[in-house]
Amino acid sequence: MMSEVSPHDSAPLEREKTNITYSYEGVIGWKSVRYLRPFRGMYHDVRRRLPHYWSDIRDAWDYRTVPSIVRMYFVNILPAIAYTMDMYRRTGEFYGINEGLFSSALAAMIFSLFSAQPLTIVGITGLISLFNYTIFDIINIYDPSIYPSFMCWTAIWAAIFHWIAAICNVCDYMRYVTDFSSEAFGMYVGIIYCIKGVEELVNEFTTHGRDAGYLACLIAILYFLTIYGLEKLGASTIWKASVRGLIADYAYPLGTLFWVGFAHFPGNLKSTHIGFIPVTRAFYPTQDRGWLIHFWDLEVKWVFVALPFGFLTMLLFYYDHNISSLTAQARQFPLKKPSGFHWDFFLLGCTTFIAGIIGIPMPNGLVPQAPVHTDSLTVYETELRVIPTEEGEGAELRRPVVKAKAVVEQRVSHFIMGLGIIGTMTGPLLVVLHTMPTAIFAGVFFTVGWGSIESNSMLKKAIFLMQESRFIQRDEPLLSIRKRKILLFIGLQGLGVAATVAISQTIAAIGFPILIILLIPLRVWALPRWFSEKELDVLDDLTADNSAVLRSLGGPPKFPGQTELAHEGLARRYSEQRSGVPRQRAGSITR
Amino acid sequence: MMSEVSPHDSAPLEREKTNITYSYEGVIGWKSVRYLRPFRGMYHDVRRRLPHYWSDIRDAWDYRTVPSIVRMYFVNILPAIAYTMDMYRRTGEFYGINEGLFSSALAAMIFSLFSAQPLTIVGITGLISLFNYTIFDIINIYDPSIYPSFMCWTAIWAAIFHWIAAICNVCDYMRYVTDFSSEAFGMYVGIIYCIKGVEELVNEFTTHGRDAGYLACLIAILYFLTIYGLEKLGASTIWKASVRGLIADYAYPLGTLFWVGFAHFPGNLKSTHIGFIPVTRAFYPTQDRGWLIHFWDLEVKWVFVALPFGFLTMLLFYYDHNISSLTAQARQFPLKKPSGFHWDFFLLGCTTFIAGIIGIPMPNGLVPQAPVHTDSLTVYETELRVIPTEEGEGAELRRPVVKAKAVVEQRVSHFIMGLGIIGTMTGPLLVVLHTMPTAIFAGVFFTVGWGSIESNSMLKKAIFLMQESRFIQRDEPLLSIRKRKILLFIGLQGLGVAATVAISQTIAAIGFPILIILLIPLRVWALPRWFSEKELDVLDDLTADNSAVLRSLGGPPKFPGQTELAHEGLARRYSEQRSGVPRQRAGSITR
Repeated sequence: MMSEVSPHDSAPLEREKTNITYSYEGVIGWKSVRYLRPFRGMYHDVRRRLPHYWSDIRDAWDYRTVPSIVRMYFVNILPAIAYTMDMYRRTGEFYGINEGLFSSALAAMIFSLFSAQPLTIVGITGLISLFNYTIFDIINIYDPSIYPSFMCWTAIWAAIFHWIAAICNVCDYMRYVTDFSSEAFGMYVGIIYCIKGVEELVNEFTTHGRDAGYLACLIAILYFLTIYGLEKLGASTIWKASVRGLIADYAYPLGTLFWVGFAHFPGNLKSTHIGFIPVTRAFYPTQDRGWLIHFWDLEVKWVFVALPFGFLTMLLFYYDHNISSLTAQARQFPLKKPSGFHWDFFLLGCTTFIAGIIGIPMPNGLVPQAPVHTDSLTVYETELRVIPTEEGEGAELRRPVVKAKAVVEQRVSHFIMGLGIIGTMTGPLLVVLHTMPTAIFAGVFFTVGWGSIESNSMLKKAIFLMQESRFIQRDEPLLSIRKRKILLFIGLQGLGVAATVAISQTIAAIGFPILIILLIPLRVWALPRWFSEKELDVLDDLTADNSAVLRSLGGPPKFPGQTELAHEGLARRYSEQRSGVPRQRAGSITR
Repeated sequence: MMSEVSPHDSAPLEREKTNITYSYEGVIGWKSVRYLRPFRGMYHDVRRRLPHYWSDIRDAWDYRTVPSIVRMYFVNILPAIAYTMDMYRRTGEFYGINEGLFSSALAAMIFSLFSAQPLTIVGITGLISLFNYTIFDIINIYDPSIYPSFMCWTAIWAAIFHWIAAICNVCDYMRYVTDFSSEAFGMYVGIIYCIKGVEELVNEFTTHGRDAGYLACLIAILYFLTIYGLEKLGASTIWKASVRGLIADYAYPLGTLFWVGFAHFPGNLKSTHIGFIPVTRAFYPTQDRGWLIHFWDLEVKWVFVALPFGFLTMLLFYYDHNISSLTAQARQFPLKKPSGFHWDFFLLGCTTFIAGIIGIPMPNGLVPQAPVHTDSLTVYETELRVIPTEEGEGAELRRPVVKAKAVVEQRVSHFIMGLGIIGTMTGPLLVVLHTMPTAIFAGVFFTVGWGSIESNSMLKKAIFLMQESRFIQRDEPLLSIRKRKILLFIGLQGLGVAATVAISQTIAAIGFPILIILLIPLRVWALPRWFSEKELDVLDDLTADNSAVLRSLGGPPKFPGQTELAHEGLARRYSEQRSGVPRQRAGSITR
């Protein structure tokens, strides 16, 4: 597995040569105002990526593509189904499994074939589920029957805003996103996932009774422990690197297979009537309707009420999708092919539009799962680092250091995963899906959610603060700044997370993208007043830290009052240098 | 907590001076045959320890005594209750909670006041429970009504064999016990504990129905994770050493309090009728009888049938009690006061006799919990070890190393714990006991059992074999011998464990002490044929490794064909030197 270093070096065009074209360096006057130069970003995105299209197919002949397809199928579809069940219950059964699968399949087909960065997996997120049922709650106050058309108009407006944003190069502003906001977002998503897991279990109690509820809790906890344990094993130094790799690659399928089987053991387990995924007739909408929403029947006033909802949707996707794309292309992955944020955001407008008019959930970039795809395609090598110590003859310490050697950059894994989802939509496979207890999905929520929390640097900084300082390595960069500054930094992040989690539990939940996005100007304008440049260098880092990615966003950002950015993210770089690149556990936005 | 170094150095007599008296060094002829010199061991045990009696009380004025009492109360009484419930179900309800508590209290009183080594906690073990219900199964075939008298005679015979063994200095042979058999025994005990935990949960399903069963599983698993997590936290470098110490000290009370409360939450939890500890009228036997067993009513033939059972009981206690005493005085604890195996074994004969004639379970040394008492009395200090590396200016590694500074050696903690158990026997506290769900006890079984398995060096050697060898530190002693020899060693141990576990599930279970004890001659006579002296040096170690303990056993053993023993246990010593003394988790026989 480790031997076949993939052949992407054969890409015909040097990314350096093509990337240099999209820049505002040295440009002055109206030409430097980015939104005044429509289509410029999209044009360069396509021009940069198109020459690589053939290699995107040819490069897929690599073993890593296989586990990547399997892993992404599970990591994508399990949460998608979980969210769809949540939406099913909370939108008057409008969105069902068929809609959810359709949406995932549609996104996979369009983005694997046409996107500029096929590494970014697009699908159903917890946030769109939250969005959809909050809108249902609001519409329900007036007239629940208009919900389908209203959602359709929300999507149409959202699509229009997407296209405007893409055309006006608005994605360029993503270069200002730092870990300050993106990790707060990652923490928020992790917490929401865990809450969803608990809600799923509570629902089991109310709909299937007490014994089903307890069994569901058991399965969810044991499923979580299984996946968590297998992934820890995969990251250990037990057995050969190839065996460990297999365990890490197939942790989800193995765990899922086992616990689905467990729920069907004859005896007490089988006769406890726990909930299984509700399925309906294949390829038909869950409700008795045609696929096309009759959006022209909606009263005009409602069409305009949908406008702000559409704008909020765009705001959510702007942040959520681009962050997921950024994390899929983080600096730790040795990517060689160029990216294209503007073109992909335009494409996202298209899927949003289609999703709207056929009444399926709007897909967008999956935040915690995004880097998992790149990770599953990365050729890792565990190297031995021998640290000679000064303790007598031949004394040394041996430490495994994981190095990312190459990434099998292609669009075939994404495409075949999409075909797999289409396959799942067929009658026979829907029957298989129906054998899955809903408790598994609570387990998936916990696994993905906890993964996002555990790897979050907010938590790491908090642990640093609590640690007895004499055991901290002296070259730890965080030691160079005062503890109360670290506390202030994660305190501000924590405030943002708390506010967003709180608002998500109310009918004002659709406003949460505003809160998240407000963290960016807070970082750009307010933080430099409270922190010195050096402190921010250590505490924060650009989320778009891959220089190739920055080129697609029109060059690195210039923060007000900051002289240079080269030294940011000292803490993270320090950790990478010590122990190598961490493998990406399912569900970690941060590295 | 770390500051008060206890005042045992004030012990009036040097242990060196008193210990030297019991030795067979240079003795020849019939005088060197140990069993021909009755009372010699017991006499010296008392002579050595008696001068320390006053200091055993005075030295107790130390903070460490407090957490020690709390921790031992929980670690002793929770498994005892669990085993008693097991016996209650499987001995026709002859042994109940009152009998179990009485036995624990009796043992604590006698051993805290009169033993030569009050660190060894004596109580109800899983093995005596196994013994008692296996005898019930056998007697049940003939006439269940004679069970109480039969058990009484078994105890009387056992007591007689105890006294003979103690008088004839038979405990001296314990010096031949090595980790080969004692770790196989630790593994066996750990596995039996886990099996008991599962049986407890299965019983919940059969007696209280499905929802109670599932809830019990949930509580047991979460209880296990709570204690395990708290103990891991206590061993980390988070917070100050004193706070960590508190967490480690009170992990059991905290976890138990929380999960008992959890089971009483109103709503689903409260209305699920899980099982609670069955209690009867305080201070009265569970069955309608007087405390004295009418053993004189038993037919003479049954009296003699009880003889071999009594012998097997003695064999079990000989191994079990002395091993627990040895592990409580392992080399890693800096003990200063002398021990006395012969006297304590005589005393065990007395408790066995009393337990027999009043019809309570026979107590003996608690194997996995024994070192926990010494550990709870040990003053640990986490020191910083800075390892300079050869990586540039000022490069270094910082590592916490736990050092055992002193042990608060006294008999007061044992005594007050015993008073606590007597208190628990009273009416009001029996009511409190009745609020505890039996599921907690399944959790206790898992915690204690897994503790014994996780820290077992059989497992550590197995992990060593599986590890990718390039990441193993070069100075690891196990690297110096061939892998298949390690495999053979743990294979032989594993065979012993498997045979013992298997026999424990049958009516032949009472024979298991024979199997365990057979491992000692196997080690002494057979292993030197298959392993070189050097290999055994690395793989094995004396269980009685504390030189003060060896003095009480009449000097170090002489293995046939072995020139010297000084280098045994290289692997363990190596690990201690690297990372210090591990804190003793509840339930680890090995260090």
